[in-house]
Amino acid sequence: MLYRSIRELADDIRSGMTTPGELVSEALERIEALDGELQAFVTVMRDAALQAAEEAEREQRRGFFRGPLHGIPIAVKDLIAVRGERLTAGSRVLADYVAPEDASVVEHLRRHGAIIIGKTNTHEFGLGIFTPPTRNPWKRDHVPGGSSGGSAVAVAAGMCVGAIGTDTGGSIRIPAACCGVTGLKPTYGRVSCHGVIPLSRSLDHVGPLARSAEDCAFIFDAIAGYDPRDPESVSGPPSRSSALLIEGPEGRGPLSLQGLRLGLPPEDFVAPLDPEVRAAWRAAVLIFQEAGAHISEVSLSRPSLATFRTIQLPEAAFAHRERGWLSERAALYGPLTLRRLQEGERIWAVDYLRAQQERRLFSTQLRSVLQRVDALVLPAQPMPAIPIAQIDQEITIEGQREEATTASLRLTLPFNLAGLPAVAFPCGFSQAGLPLGLQVVGNAFDEATVLRIAHAYQQLTDWHRRDIP
Amino acid sequence: MLYRSIRELADDIRSGMTTPGELVSEALERIEALDGELQAFVTVMRDAALQAAEEAEREQRRGFFRGPLHGIPIAVKDLIAVRGERLTAGSRVLADYVAPEDASVVEHLRRHGAIIIGKTNTHEFGLGIFTPPTRNPWKRDHVPGGSSGGSAVAVAAGMCVGAIGTDTGGSIRIPAACCGVTGLKPTYGRVSCHGVIPLSRSLDHVGPLARSAEDCAFIFDAIAGYDPRDPESVSGPPSRSSALLIEGPEGRGPLSLQGLRLGLPPEDFVAPLDPEVRAAWRAAVLIFQEAGAHISEVSLSRPSLATFRTIQLPEAAFAHRERGWLSERAALYGPLTLRRLQEGERIWAVDYLRAQQERRLFSTQLRSVLQRVDALVLPAQPMPAIPIAQIDQEITIEGQREEATTASLRLTLPFNLAGLPAVAFPCGFSQAGLPLGLQVVGNAFDEATVLRIAHAYQQLTDWHRRDIP
Repeated sequence: MLYRSIRELADDIRSGMTTPGELVSEALERIEALDGELQAFVTVMRDAALQAAEEAEREQRRGFFRGPLHGIPIAVKDLIAVRGERLTAGSRVLADYVAPEDASVVEHLRRHGAIIIGKTNTHEFGLGIFTPPTRNPWKRDHVPGGSSGGSAVAVAAGMCVGAIGTDTGGSIRIPAACCGVTGLKPTYGRVSCHGVIPLSRSLDHVGPLARSAEDCAFIFDAIAGYDPRDPESVSGPPSRSSALLIEGPEGRGPLSLQGLRLGLPPEDFVAPLDPEVRAAWRAAVLIFQEAGAHISEVSLSRPSLATFRTIQLPEAAFAHRERGWLSERAALYGPLTLRRLQEGERIWAVDYLRAQQERRLFSTQLRSVLQRVDALVLPAQPMPAIPIAQIDQEITIEGQREEATTASLRLTLPFNLAGLPAVAFPCGFSQAGLPLGLQVVGNAFDEATVLRIAHAYQQLTDWHRRDIP
Repeated sequence: MLYRSIRELADDIRSGMTTPGELVSEALERIEALDGELQAFVTVMRDAALQAAEEAEREQRRGFFRGPLHGIPIAVKDLIAVRGERLTAGSRVLADYVAPEDASVVEHLRRHGAIIIGKTNTHEFGLGIFTPPTRNPWKRDHVPGGSSGGSAVAVAAGMCVGAIGTDTGGSIRIPAACCGVTGLKPTYGRVSCHGVIPLSRSLDHVGPLARSAEDCAFIFDAIAGYDPRDPESVSGPPSRSSALLIEGPEGRGPLSLQGLRLGLPPEDFVAPLDPEVRAAWRAAVLIFQEAGAHISEVSLSRPSLATFRTIQLPEAAFAHRERGWLSERAALYGPLTLRRLQEGERIWAVDYLRAQQERRLFSTQLRSVLQRVDALVLPAQPMPAIPIAQIDQEITIEGQREEATTASLRLTLPFNLAGLPAVAFPCGFSQAGLPLGLQVVGNAFDEATVLRIAHAYQQLTDWHRRDIP
């Protein structure tokens, strides 16, 4: 039942065909059955979720229906505060911390009737692209990606209908691609980061993961909006992406791909690519083309991981220093996290400023490209999820060796630097049975277009509807 | 004649009572007579200015009148590019550099008919608050302030009608206060910095200096506006400050101070203050009060010089490194400039980020204050211009010793950090005959209000009309 779409579930709840209590119970059963092995959850909010379901049913009986998320079980990454629950950030540094209030995104979810079912595993403080100890539901000895790995696995395994993740260099899109779900990194500042443990404030984004682009649109519409408590929050028109998805612009029906201009980044930008990823990307482009989209290659140079790290790491170190963690709790960090934070402390301001300038040049270039095409289409990851055993190793893609972390980040981090909306979703499976991810990137504040392109693709294919083995 | 207002001069030019050629000739004569001693100018553009005056007269004969700046001689700080002229930035590093094109601000001036009369001295690269070798026209053994000292002296001594300066920590307002002229630091991003040698990009502002707030308004209106060539430029409504000054809002006549809410920063913010400065400030406040303004003390904490330097110096070092100057021409810098740039190279990104956070907190606090009052009124400088002999010494104000540079910057730099418009103008003279400066600070994009308050003050007093001895 949890694999059904939010639209269907909302209809069934509204009509009494199902109840929030049934949905929550099924989610809890599914967690009980699968999470011992998959370890998507840090905290299962069993009692709170059951109580919230009862309250949702009471509201419904009083005739108060909060919209499509009413009674829908949603999981929340454990970097995000849920009042009265532990907020560990995947770290011993915060092992005993209990959040005194809800993050803004959680407030929004509750106001729209969603039921918080639990907190999902994250790479320590989000500073990595794996999610130990969480396992990939498609192949249990493979990584789920990260840092929002728990959220992606919870969705993929049907332990919730949707989940919230965060994305600083790809942490929503990487696990979405690895786990075969749909994940949206919104425009920078469009979803409040208030109540979210910061990783790198100029790169952090909060967004939804779900089975489909349509489900992501419903969740995104609920959580987007200006928040004065987040200094990076930006005001903009209210999001109507779900309505646009379903009704189309000016109510003329859902998106036709006819005449849509899709840009493909050049070989330099994407290479090297695993051959199965490359083939799946090409196949997806053919589908878009057959559906009437104009395809063209655009000119775009890829920003370096060094540029990204020179911004990310000092911002992360700053956030940890501000809270006194780096001075008072250094021994509690995992060695990799501590090493990266210490690296961040030793970056010069002039180098940070140069990286910010490179970022600005890339953003300008990308925004100019996006004046000539409606969206970019590229792989979300250069390779399928890797075996857990290879986490710290170099991998080989098209004969080129690179670190797994570098490979995972290089197609996603550009869009954190640019702050533009990007959605990742499954576009096939490898012969080994692992999902392959596509990525669509659009203009600022135009989440509706990237979601509509993903939605159109998902109307023509069914990769996103496959069930885990 | 050059001491007359732009409004009067424009009327006279329009009616043929005077000509651009006469104005330019008088400016050149005045420079000839006084600048040997005052040393306001690096470059006097004699031939170009005379030619431009002829062209302005030809245009006028053809019936083409470009507005209030038509034929008005304006001087430009030597950090700003004027096509075909040397652009030294007051440094041996750029001793031989000739600008290939006009800065945006110069383009704007020319388009509005102003005549560029010459380039004025600056502290080396703007990185200081004196302007060797320029002298204060009120007392020749005193500093003119800086770094736009040449521009302030040129205006004060009647060698031009207005001038352009730059202000990164006070470099328009400090020399305005020291030289008894009016200087406006506009809202951050409102006047393009394209073609201006950057000092610290997040703090740099370009703005006018002139005899009166009204003259500043005419120049400001001509130079304000979005410029795609400056990545920090912001779009906003076109400036109509001069019209507002003269016609008042909705054409109801010039500003009455009746009901205007003026805030005074607390003692902590301004202290220590030279007793003559304090008395002049109090007297100015009484004038505002008698004219009907509501006066209240506001709560505001002063950002530290350390916070300012931690942003300013790495940004300056970055700009100089980017251009290769620090590596290739280090020996050509003055020792103080080189020491500061090298200090900037050795600031950590995490400390830069902390300073930016302190800046944000101060800005938020200040913007909140400016929701409750229309403007802040405070001294522009804690003391009158100091003797040249005391440049590198500590000075004593109200029994407290501080470095002259610290004293000069501490009342102006807060408004660079906040990016808000601030105007400095004379509010009296010390017994020794040196001007004392007042400062009025307003809300973002509301230059009109600070200029109107200064204008109202200047209608009630005549400090700004005094002639140098």
